[in-house]
Amino acid sequence: MCQLMGMSANVPTDARFSFTGLVQRGGGTDIHRDGWGIVFYRGKGIQEFKDPNPSAESEVAKLVTLHAIRSKTVISHIRQANVGDVALENTHPYSRELWGQYWCFAHNGQLKDQCYLELPLGRFKPVGSTDSEHIFCWMLGVIDETFAGAPKDMSDLWALVASFAKRLHQMGVSNFMLSNGDALIVHCSNRLHWITRRAPFGEATLKDIEMSVDFGQETSPNDVVSVIATEPLTVNERWNEMQPNEILVFVDGEVVANY
Amino acid sequence: MCQLMGMSANVPTDARFSFTGLVQRGGGTDIHRDGWGIVFYRGKGIQEFKDPNPSAESEVAKLVTLHAIRSKTVISHIRQANVGDVALENTHPYSRELWGQYWCFAHNGQLKDQCYLELPLGRFKPVGSTDSEHIFCWMLGVIDETFAGAPKDMSDLWALVASFAKRLHQMGVSNFMLSNGDALIVHCSNRLHWITRRAPFGEATLKDIEMSVDFGQETSPNDVVSVIATEPLTVNERWNEMQPNEILVFVDGEVVANY
Repeated sequence: MCQLMGMSANVPTDARFSFTGLVQRGGGTDIHRDGWGIVFYRGKGIQEFKDPNPSAESEVAKLVTLHAIRSKTVISHIRQANVGDVALENTHPYSRELWGQYWCFAHNGQLKDQCYLELPLGRFKPVGSTDSEHIFCWMLGVIDETFAGAPKDMSDLWALVASFAKRLHQMGVSNFMLSNGDALIVHCSNRLHWITRRAPFGEATLKDIEMSVDFGQETSPNDVVSVIATEPLTVNERWNEMQPNEILVFVDGEVVANY
Repeated sequence: MCQLMGMSANVPTDARFSFTGLVQRGGGTDIHRDGWGIVFYRGKGIQEFKDPNPSAESEVAKLVTLHAIRSKTVISHIRQANVGDVALENTHPYSRELWGQYWCFAHNGQLKDQCYLELPLGRFKPVGSTDSEHIFCWMLGVIDETFAGAPKDMSDLWALVASFAKRLHQMGVSNFMLSNGDALIVHCSNRLHWITRRAPFGEATLKDIEMSVDFGQETSPNDVVSVIATEPLTVNERWNEMQPNEILVFVDGEVVANY
């Protein structure tokens, strides 16, 4: 199982605190040594950092923890390989352009008996050899075939993604995060936790490394920031545990839909 | 006009020396302050670093100059904006997946009277607002419509790209680099230089910053490495000047076709 982390916020927010905790799990406090990646949405663009080396030892990860990149939507992943070699092309998050938007996807879990190969591909093709990238390409292909362009009512699209998630859940374990920059759609198959921070902000202490932050010093009163992670990243806050087969959609830091 | 840099090699090669010279032109020795990017092909994957900040001041650029990333194909770009705001989504190189391969593109120049808008788009759509990304999406769309999949004889594809280049050359200034990781296709509209380094390797001195390297210490006798750049990056080597409307295709460091 890999480790996922996502963030959705209503203002461009520094995600270093959460990322600093997460990267420890990549060869530090945990066994996920097979590469890592993070994507920051900034405006319509994405800034991507990936490395097939363990995150706890990665110079690129160190850079990401040292310099603030402010973003409203972030997806990060550290990998423990099962399907697909340890290689850059198998490193999450994956991204593709659809309708002039960058879509990003990270995933953990494993489907039974390679049944992901039954999911038919449209115009998007995997570059690497993971089940996760195949699943992403299948999803985007169906989205592309279902809608002529970005739908006016995005909840139609979220409902379609929720139907993908329900299908995948029947096929094995499949926790994932999908975003087009505006919405962050999260599916829990067996293990995901989330928290929404808003005023009055308090202090939080990381679980995986000795570090605390006083969010009251870092934020404005109207900020709303949700963080989603495989395991809670902090020890002194109350994280919500997602239920198996639950889907949450975050926009601007708030849960706007669930399935 | 922006600054382009590309590398093609027959073994994974450290491109830091060339990149170190190039980034000085992003707000240091030259005026290209509007962002920069570099893509390294590693296996089938791409490792991408981009920043809308000037490269000479960028922490991300510093990281890339400090840590060796070995790659057979590299494309880099530093930007002086004309069409499109200074923003991450307008920062080259652009990338898209086609046939399970990542295609990357960087460009400098400007077409007359916004005539790039006449180039019809297929399934690939620009995320940002540059003429360059529009041109890239147009090219890939026509490639997608022309071939059912990656052609067995890649020279058919190179000839098609050459026809794009000839058309663009009629429409204004358009220097570009396009790659799928195997081939690096380079078009000179008005300004590009290139050099192929092979045994016996000598010493080279950068033009933009005080730095020399003895390639004899850094390479094996069978290595072949070509570097292509808007302006020569070194002062004590003989660079070839490309001719207006010339197209070169590099594979494994060698020029394998020209149009």
